[in-house]
Amino acid sequence: MPSYTSPLRDINFVFKDLLGFEKLYAKYPQSKDKMTSEIVEQYLEVASDFCENELLPLNAIGDQQGCKVQNGIVTTPDGFKEAYQKYVELGFPSLTGNEEYGGQGFPSLLWIAISEILTSTNWAWGMYPGLSHGAMSTIESHGTDEQKEKYLTNLISGIWTGTMCLTESHAGSDLGLIRTKAVPNQDGSYSITGEKIFISAGEHDLSENIIHIVLARLPDAPLGTKGISLFIVPKFNLDTDGNIAERNGVVCSALEHKMGIHGNATCVLNFDNAKGFLIGPENRGLNCMFTFMNAARIGTAIQGLAASETAYQGALTYAKERLAMRSISGIKNPDLPADPIIVHAPVRNMLLTQKVFAEGSRALAYYLSTYVDIADLSTDELEQKNAEDKLALLTPIAKAFMTELGVESAKHGMQVFGGHGYISEHGMEQIARDVRISTLYEGTTEIQAVDLLVRKIIGSKGNLLLLLTDEIKNFLNMNQGNNITQPMLSKLEQVVNQWIDLTEDLQNKVTNNLDEVGAAAVDYLYFSGYAVFAYLWAKMAVIAQEKIEQGTKDEFYFAKVSTAQFYFERILPRTLMHAALIQANSDSLYSLSPELFKFD
Amino acid sequence: MPSYTSPLRDINFVFKDLLGFEKLYAKYPQSKDKMTSEIVEQYLEVASDFCENELLPLNAIGDQQGCKVQNGIVTTPDGFKEAYQKYVELGFPSLTGNEEYGGQGFPSLLWIAISEILTSTNWAWGMYPGLSHGAMSTIESHGTDEQKEKYLTNLISGIWTGTMCLTESHAGSDLGLIRTKAVPNQDGSYSITGEKIFISAGEHDLSENIIHIVLARLPDAPLGTKGISLFIVPKFNLDTDGNIAERNGVVCSALEHKMGIHGNATCVLNFDNAKGFLIGPENRGLNCMFTFMNAARIGTAIQGLAASETAYQGALTYAKERLAMRSISGIKNPDLPADPIIVHAPVRNMLLTQKVFAEGSRALAYYLSTYVDIADLSTDELEQKNAEDKLALLTPIAKAFMTELGVESAKHGMQVFGGHGYISEHGMEQIARDVRISTLYEGTTEIQAVDLLVRKIIGSKGNLLLLLTDEIKNFLNMNQGNNITQPMLSKLEQVVNQWIDLTEDLQNKVTNNLDEVGAAAVDYLYFSGYAVFAYLWAKMAVIAQEKIEQGTKDEFYFAKVSTAQFYFERILPRTLMHAALIQANSDSLYSLSPELFKFD
Repeated sequence: MPSYTSPLRDINFVFKDLLGFEKLYAKYPQSKDKMTSEIVEQYLEVASDFCENELLPLNAIGDQQGCKVQNGIVTTPDGFKEAYQKYVELGFPSLTGNEEYGGQGFPSLLWIAISEILTSTNWAWGMYPGLSHGAMSTIESHGTDEQKEKYLTNLISGIWTGTMCLTESHAGSDLGLIRTKAVPNQDGSYSITGEKIFISAGEHDLSENIIHIVLARLPDAPLGTKGISLFIVPKFNLDTDGNIAERNGVVCSALEHKMGIHGNATCVLNFDNAKGFLIGPENRGLNCMFTFMNAARIGTAIQGLAASETAYQGALTYAKERLAMRSISGIKNPDLPADPIIVHAPVRNMLLTQKVFAEGSRALAYYLSTYVDIADLSTDELEQKNAEDKLALLTPIAKAFMTELGVESAKHGMQVFGGHGYISEHGMEQIARDVRISTLYEGTTEIQAVDLLVRKIIGSKGNLLLLLTDEIKNFLNMNQGNNITQPMLSKLEQVVNQWIDLTEDLQNKVTNNLDEVGAAAVDYLYFSGYAVFAYLWAKMAVIAQEKIEQGTKDEFYFAKVSTAQFYFERILPRTLMHAALIQANSDSLYSLSPELFKFD
Repeated sequence: MPSYTSPLRDINFVFKDLLGFEKLYAKYPQSKDKMTSEIVEQYLEVASDFCENELLPLNAIGDQQGCKVQNGIVTTPDGFKEAYQKYVELGFPSLTGNEEYGGQGFPSLLWIAISEILTSTNWAWGMYPGLSHGAMSTIESHGTDEQKEKYLTNLISGIWTGTMCLTESHAGSDLGLIRTKAVPNQDGSYSITGEKIFISAGEHDLSENIIHIVLARLPDAPLGTKGISLFIVPKFNLDTDGNIAERNGVVCSALEHKMGIHGNATCVLNFDNAKGFLIGPENRGLNCMFTFMNAARIGTAIQGLAASETAYQGALTYAKERLAMRSISGIKNPDLPADPIIVHAPVRNMLLTQKVFAEGSRALAYYLSTYVDIADLSTDELEQKNAEDKLALLTPIAKAFMTELGVESAKHGMQVFGGHGYISEHGMEQIARDVRISTLYEGTTEIQAVDLLVRKIIGSKGNLLLLLTDEIKNFLNMNQGNNITQPMLSKLEQVVNQWIDLTEDLQNKVTNNLDEVGAAAVDYLYFSGYAVFAYLWAKMAVIAQEKIEQGTKDEFYFAKVSTAQFYFERILPRTLMHAALIQANSDSLYSLSPELFKFD
């Protein structure tokens, strides 16, 4: 099992130095007294303790044992249930819950940081509470008061958990194709019938009841995405007092065999006249789901961050210990039979790549979640609109880019271990298997890329982008830099200007060649990711450099500046390739008919 | 399980159109009558039949069941043993074997093509005969006549198999650190004692006997790589007539739990005073291993090719069937509820990327193996030297680049499948797990990169590179191109000139900054890979375009030209990034001390 320690020092840096969180949250009455250094640090320490001591030891066990299903009853791996009980006792499920229903009412930033640590120590386990969050936020946003009273209270306390039931075997990215039916009953409820697949945490033994949020079609609903409604379907029906009554008509008919996240139950759920309750307006189910989907995308981005961090930590420990060969520029450790492999350039390059991915991803995810909170907490329309716009732009970037970086970091982790990276006991290959789901679920990288370029950028006529690039230019105007930071700021300026130019080019292509826009989408997404990272790394470098100039002796800040330099020197040049491909001719992409792709 | 059909049409193109194999092999008396179209086609068809019908159905079974060990006895998955019997009956083990010892004496090109198909249909199974080839070629090159008589005959017939025992738990890439001891006995044999790990096919139930080739140290041998000798250690000792006698002191104490290739037994082998026989001169074991290691690297490159091809075929079939969304430029299939996903630019881009990887890798591997054969068959010193030099240069490129492309292709395969890519029954995730070993074993990508840049390029003062770039320039001089091929040829010319310039820059850095050379190695390797692919794709485009101009109606050639255009337009721009990184400042790579990498 690779070593892991919660990166509290860096989390602290992002909270305080980068985001100035105390000042930020003090602006809003709901968060003012909650988001103090003292409280946040205490929560993070309790979470770290729990994750390192309870969840981390279950990570490899969960992978080996997986979940089992027999007659519809799903058993989670040894220790998962007990860990969940402890998690409930510690009060984590209620962290961000509405105070009216027993929640603690914390903003999402704190949950995001805690969920990074949860996922880092046990991805599969972390999905159970993760999915509950999705169900809670959907009911919170769209449920009636009665529904909130009935379902939200027990979800917030954690004695119940929740799921999101979207996918069907023929309908994944294209939810307009779903077939699950909802037929109205006399009593105002609905009978739900259909088969859902890929339902994470869809059935398990952790909680008394499971509240499914289900997409289905009303009779005579319009075809496609405009005919989908949203329903609450509990595993156990409730009696008039809200207590658990008879079993509802929803059964786990199978568990999927997957590449990773074995400890999470990925269920095929059969709904057979299951009793459901409409949530939100008829035929507006997909719109209601957007709240959840955006939250789920940020949650998935966090999973990418977790993989970057854990693969980094594992590889770093190994690279300091493992001896092989001598440094190319001369023996470094003459007392040992060989040098530790951290001296070798390709190994250092992989480790530093992982480091900039992990720390950059943390900065982006936490920065992004302040906008989730501002959109929620602010009463200033302009401020709220700005936050929502930033979220719309940055969510697909964070989701796709951070998960792809997680995949890359996991790969480097295995490479640093050499052949041992392929062996299960070292844990690096589990990270590589677990993280592979993250570029697939909640919309593949390719889907995010099309969402970003077509819906967000072109859909807003470029305005969403300008909102961010204005923020970056403002930062550049305020910071001229010194001999250390100026080279980074100047590279940031270049890449931002190029981002704007490339975007204008693409907008001009909309009228005459939409195919070229499609061809550019994935590279545009990567370019955007590296550009956003450049902004955050420049910001972090400026902050750290200021501390150094103020005379700090904390080596953390020296390392931060040096890591930022690595980003600008050895990672940002990747944009050269993406820029070229955004502008590349796409004729050859479309010239082959499907029949000409292969010849036997 | 993804669909797969042997790509005989493309193999045929590479053999005939690209390599002109009949004319090439007609030059040498040993291969003249063997390498005819008729014979080669017949062998490839028999191999395809066997692989598609016997090995492919065992691929998922092997992955699910894995190998089992009990009291040192290893059981392979259901059907593996029977398939091996059939393979022996068909005479495949003897294909390239020395005719004096019962072999068929074919050049390696034919074996390389067959092993592509073997690996494509069942990677784990294909490793058993693959390792035998390593043992055979080692004994063939360095064994005495008596050793050949005793061991080679039964290896060639296939009733025995072989292994290569190099790695120890603390010594992988750095074999100079191995500790296994060989103590001379009175009778001229040696007692071998030590533990070897990661021994593929180290113990199993496929064959009567297993011949281990083992690296060990003689008493008082010099430290490091110059004190390693090579031994033959049979699983069962032989009596004076060469028949199987008592069990030797080598036992499989455990099987590794791995990310993939579950059907292959990756053994921990304990040698406890096992009887061994010196092969080659004392303390020259590593030199003797180079023959094997180069062959093993080309074999691993083939595995990368196989992953590119199988992931491509699986994804292509799915992309034609799966319906989701409408094409960005308008509905393509109005009769269906959605368009097949092959219409979407990001999906097409992934499929064509896989296609250029698979076909380009095939071209490179087969081209490379003609040099293996020329080095072996030619009696012309100059021709032989040229072949050996090309091999020295191209082997690390092929090994590292083709396996990395295989990893990327497998990733695209999963992405095309969306969430279904993560589910075992579709088989795409198995390809992704299996292929991950290929960038690790036989020297990681990073090790190959250092071998290429430091040993081969700088070690030859750039001369090895010039040998290849002269060949490319010669090709460019002979082919001016037409309006279709000229843009590709001109891009090839640019990238080759840049390759030469970058190499000169790096050579100049050797005296003043070796660290910068190390920092550039991995990007130099990728740049080299894309440059070599540019050469081969240009050559294939020119050949196909000539056929078109000669009036062919075979759509294969039109598709080949179009695929080449895709390579030059949408893959080759990756060299921009690698060139920038080769030239990038590497200060930030070395500025952090190991202590400053992480803060808790």
